[in-house]
Amino acid sequence: MDSIRVNGQRLWDSLMAMAQFGATKKGGCNRLALSDEDKLARDLFCQWCNEAGCTVTIDQFGNIFAKRKGKNKGLPSVATGSHLDTQPTGGKFDGVFGVLSGLEVLRTLNEHNIETDAPFEFTVWTNEEGSRFQPAMQGSGVFVGRFDLETEWNKKDINGVCLRDELERIGYLGSEPIGQRNIGAFFEAHIEQGPILEKQEQQVGIVRLGQGIRWYDVYATGQESHSGTTPMGFRKDALAASCEIITEIEKLANNVEHAVATTGFLQVSPNSRNTIAGSVKFSVDLRNPYPDVLERMHDEFNQLCNDVSLNRKVDIKVDHFWYFAPVEFKASQDVKQAAEKLGYTHMDIVAGAGHDACYMSDIVPSGMVFTPCENGISHNEIENTTLEQCEAGANVLLHTMLEASQRLARQEVE
Amino acid sequence: MDSIRVNGQRLWDSLMAMAQFGATKKGGCNRLALSDEDKLARDLFCQWCNEAGCTVTIDQFGNIFAKRKGKNKGLPSVATGSHLDTQPTGGKFDGVFGVLSGLEVLRTLNEHNIETDAPFEFTVWTNEEGSRFQPAMQGSGVFVGRFDLETEWNKKDINGVCLRDELERIGYLGSEPIGQRNIGAFFEAHIEQGPILEKQEQQVGIVRLGQGIRWYDVYATGQESHSGTTPMGFRKDALAASCEIITEIEKLANNVEHAVATTGFLQVSPNSRNTIAGSVKFSVDLRNPYPDVLERMHDEFNQLCNDVSLNRKVDIKVDHFWYFAPVEFKASQDVKQAAEKLGYTHMDIVAGAGHDACYMSDIVPSGMVFTPCENGISHNEIENTTLEQCEAGANVLLHTMLEASQRLARQEVE
Repeated sequence: MDSIRVNGQRLWDSLMAMAQFGATKKGGCNRLALSDEDKLARDLFCQWCNEAGCTVTIDQFGNIFAKRKGKNKGLPSVATGSHLDTQPTGGKFDGVFGVLSGLEVLRTLNEHNIETDAPFEFTVWTNEEGSRFQPAMQGSGVFVGRFDLETEWNKKDINGVCLRDELERIGYLGSEPIGQRNIGAFFEAHIEQGPILEKQEQQVGIVRLGQGIRWYDVYATGQESHSGTTPMGFRKDALAASCEIITEIEKLANNVEHAVATTGFLQVSPNSRNTIAGSVKFSVDLRNPYPDVLERMHDEFNQLCNDVSLNRKVDIKVDHFWYFAPVEFKASQDVKQAAEKLGYTHMDIVAGAGHDACYMSDIVPSGMVFTPCENGISHNEIENTTLEQCEAGANVLLHTMLEASQRLARQEVE
Repeated sequence: MDSIRVNGQRLWDSLMAMAQFGATKKGGCNRLALSDEDKLARDLFCQWCNEAGCTVTIDQFGNIFAKRKGKNKGLPSVATGSHLDTQPTGGKFDGVFGVLSGLEVLRTLNEHNIETDAPFEFTVWTNEEGSRFQPAMQGSGVFVGRFDLETEWNKKDINGVCLRDELERIGYLGSEPIGQRNIGAFFEAHIEQGPILEKQEQQVGIVRLGQGIRWYDVYATGQESHSGTTPMGFRKDALAASCEIITEIEKLANNVEHAVATTGFLQVSPNSRNTIAGSVKFSVDLRNPYPDVLERMHDEFNQLCNDVSLNRKVDIKVDHFWYFAPVEFKASQDVKQAAEKLGYTHMDIVAGAGHDACYMSDIVPSGMVFTPCENGISHNEIENTTLEQCEAGANVLLHTMLEASQRLARQEVE
């Protein structure tokens, strides 16, 4: 069983077949959650799984579960999966690579007539991107109980179209109650969406931790005045205060391992060349995979805002409106063993973005396999990777799932 | 003649009468250049000057000159004036105080039957604010030859209405050719529009210098990427680069006497919370009253942009699109002598904003009298000052003009 490998060309062909749904001129995909294009992608996945002998079940939130039987009916499933929806100007691989790596695992097992100890499940999660309906990772979030089913069913897109109505319209309002699958381990293969593996020339990233995230809105309020007639010492410049904070936050993150800090949004009022800014609103995004370190960053950031406010007599209000706890991927050892067995170059890595596996780790030991993507670019129509990189990732996923299945069987005996 | 004083109450009453045209609910004025309200204000000024025995002339750009004869017909005029147009949410004093201080000088001379050596002229300059038609200080700029008459006549407001047509419509397209007045000295009284006199508890500011101004647009271009998956060391963050520059420019200005530096405008793209900014555009406004110091600030700013660009691999393009040379008010000694004679507390001060007197100093020795305004606030409906402050400024203007008249007479004899 150690010698079996996926078929890289078949995986690549299925990726390219899926990329037809919502294909854009620039080579990417526009396949928003529960759109007609999403329906076509889901239908093809279900058809492929049915052809491969699986039992396909849809739950009440449109999450898809294709089950391949195992030898031991008492064992929980080893599951894998990701999402088929994309950003409006997304690529061909984000999410889809994880779903179709699972499909390729399924086909490889069939090809070699392998009967695993545990059942295997191949999943598609509804609306991971959060582009059409918010929040992101909605399907997995509902599945693990982070979000309430009724609330999420009633979410509307910008045209006022209700999510539940769209599920029904495209034929994916399933009957299975939420969270009823018996799953023992969950794995997700995904392109890295960052530059590290490529720069380090590693084939596989073993995701040990997922970044915790703290999101803030900061409101700086100074005093509008004339840029020519107000001496430096008399100013209450909301933009200068904001720039000082943003510059200092960057230094803060530079000094902490695995930390990132970003201001991507900033809005100035009155935003006039010769008027000192009276007010500024900006975002702050702090991430670290260790809860205590992230907490320390939070404290230092608040202290910084306080200091700048006192020094400049500019009012600084910090609204800390979202916290996403760091994730520990407790089944990452299965991924590491698989990568080592296969002889791929690999490194431990931190997941900087949210993924369905982050929520799944709430309820079962989970793991992620990262593969390189060209120049680290994702959420972009030019997102790219290679057949060889996809093949390596799918091989790791295959042997990770086999490792996990054996582990679950051993654990039952013990 | 040393003992004569203006009538503070009469000056205040004329200020309040003028404030009716375009009066806003919040106590300010909306009297855009060449609007119906501007016409009413001009008409009242001309009526008052006619009643005071002046000859009123309008030039081809609508600038108004009310002339009071002097003893010596060969002498050039001692002139004063400012503007009657306001910002859309302007105050009652910016510009108007200078015009009506002149009127009060005129009335005081008449009241005391004083015949001056030189003729006196009381002026109103067209469109100083630059709100409805650009640029600002348009009438005085055309008068001194900085701007071409035909070009400025053809300027249009946002509704496409042509400036020359508006001059004609409100009856202020005069026949006198541009720049034909024989003026020997020009003075302008104005509220400070800044906080210095109030904070220093001085009644009068003697404006020795006018800030030189350099305006820039800065374009920072980095690379959009995901805030979670892009480690700090791999970023080309256009906003972080911009904030570093803005923070350093502030320090640069803090370390140079009389210098101010301001970024009032900043725009981020794509301006999304979890995307590192790909591009930022922002304004830089550098001011200093000494040409060589302003030049050095220019060099340091460019060097700074260059350094930040190299360190961060973010492209920084600096477009230096406007330079306004520093102004030396060569007749400021007349103002100082008047202030000292009258016993007012006074200090030398730098004009941070542009004024009609800045352009007039191109062609004749000029001077400015600043008076305090409440909390330094201007270009605002709550702009405020007191009867006593206005009275002091007008008294200084009166005796400054008398000083200048005597000086011109002495110079002719020499």
